[in-house]
Amino acid sequence: MRKQFVVIGLGRFGTSVAKTLNTLGHDVLAMDKDEHAVQVITQDVTQAVQADAREEETLRALGVRNFDVAIVAIGDDLEANILITLMLKEMGIPYVVAKAQSVQHGKVLEKIGADKIVYPEQDMGIRLANNLIRTNVMDFIELSLDYSIFEIIAPTEFINKTLGKLNLRAVYKINVVAIKKGVDQIVIAPGADEAIEEKDILVIVCNKKALSRLPD
Amino acid sequence: MRKQFVVIGLGRFGTSVAKTLNTLGHDVLAMDKDEHAVQVITQDVTQAVQADAREEETLRALGVRNFDVAIVAIGDDLEANILITLMLKEMGIPYVVAKAQSVQHGKVLEKIGADKIVYPEQDMGIRLANNLIRTNVMDFIELSLDYSIFEIIAPTEFINKTLGKLNLRAVYKINVVAIKKGVDQIVIAPGADEAIEEKDILVIVCNKKALSRLPD
Ligand SMILES: Nc1ncnc2c1ncn2[C@@H]1O[C@H](COP(=O)(O)OP(=O)(O)OP(=O)(O)O)[C@@H](O)[C@H]1O
Ligand SMILES: Nc1ncnc2c1ncn2[C@@H]1O[C@H](COP(=O)(O)OP(=O)(O)OP(=O)(O)O)[C@@H](O)[C@H]1O
Ligand SMILES: [Ca+2]
Ligand SMILES: [Ca+2]
Ligand SMILES: [Ca+2]
Ligand SMILES: [Ca+2]
Repeated sequence: MRKQFVVIGLGRFGTSVAKTLNTLGHDVLAMDKDEHAVQVITQDVTQAVQADAREEETLRALGVRNFDVAIVAIGDDLEANILITLMLKEMGIPYVVAKAQSVQHGKVLEKIGADKIVYPEQDMGIRLANNLIRTNVMDFIELSLDYSIFEIIAPTEFINKTLGKLNLRAVYKINVVAIKKGVDQIVIAPGADEAIEEKDILVIVCNKKALSRLPD
Repeated sequence: MRKQFVVIGLGRFGTSVAKTLNTLGHDVLAMDKDEHAVQVITQDVTQAVQADAREEETLRALGVRNFDVAIVAIGDDLEANILITLMLKEMGIPYVVAKAQSVQHGKVLEKIGADKIVYPEQDMGIRLANNLIRTNVMDFIELSLDYSIFEIIAPTEFINKTLGKLNLRAVYKINVVAIKKGVDQIVIAPGADEAIEEKDILVIVCNKKALSRLPD
């Protein structure tokens, strides 16, 4: 179902959210008080408007109350961020996402009714740090304190061996979920006969400690 | 192996990178020209210094040239961001990560030798937009154009049924990699007897189109 989104604040984060939602086929109203920010995005969203979102009349005139989801992506101006989030909830928008500067700010947003609080810079900081520690980890999803899914560059020792021979589950306590071969080829749930080739990316589930025992 | 990291620019992103690296057991030198930003992080890193990182002497005096990895997390001041990245590479730091404002900025950083360019706000914008489209998707890793790993809230229809009975591979073409049960319990590679319970999170590998065929 095509949904209606309003994105308020077109910094790097807000612009990226708005463009992606538009690409995914949804209606996007993008708003910023800064004219330049609005001009830049005009071609990439359904409607782009230059306005100060603290003005309730402007929001009403644009029919914002009928939108499904609002994203408040204002960063530095905490007062505007909080005030606008509160106003959007009071107008009856069912799902309001707000970008927080800090944990304290996040708590205020939660109290005034924000449905989801996001910390883009902090989250990406955690991701980058984890990526830097093990340079062969390309991406990961934390499953629990102990377990994660990791995308890793296949260790050199594994190359030209089959999964059956490597016996990774017994030797390293890792499960291979998928193998990415080349740009757009992927083997899901690979069997024992599957051989690991150079430049393969392994998608594995394992204990975080198991990861550090893998060869490079 | 304990590595030495220097993080320059302690905004939200830089602070998060520095704190996480420290938590993961590495040496972190954190630097900002703003005294307040430095004070806030002092307890959470190996060393925190108030200095303008454009001053080459300061960097030399701190022994920055011997560090393994540098992260340039300066945002708004493009000139400082580019100048400092260049200087760090010229000093011989093997791996320099730089935060870019835009694709054009990223290209400049690449030309002057940055080893990794990051776009924290843009990346999180793409992630949030994807999450908003299907509200039961909690996290994901893109495996290829067609396939992803998704963390989804178990659809209501699946609750109190075993994987064997649901036969998800045949019916929906999805593979269940793991089931998250409660805060820190996880079943890796669940068998046919495993039952899905309320509030379970399913970790699945599937075609992106298969995901949209799942019940809510
Ligand atoms: N009251 C307001 N109404 C509309 N737009 C606003 C309002 N206040 C701020 N903005 C806009 O929000 C945008 C994002 O704000 P800001 O640059 O402070 O956030 P940021 O966190 O630094 O952004 P990012 O890190 O995503 O680039 C700016 O383009 C700004 O013009
Ligand atoms: N020449 C410099 N030397 C040291 N620190 C600097 C220098 N220039 C800027 N900084 C610091 O870099 C930090 C981050 O910069 P800025 O706030 O512009 O980035 P940002 O992208 O808005 O940050 P974030 O979105 O991560 O909060 C600031 O605390 C600033 O004081
Ligand atoms: Ca800004
Ligand atoms: Ca930012
Ligand atoms: Ca800033
Ligand atoms: Ca900023």
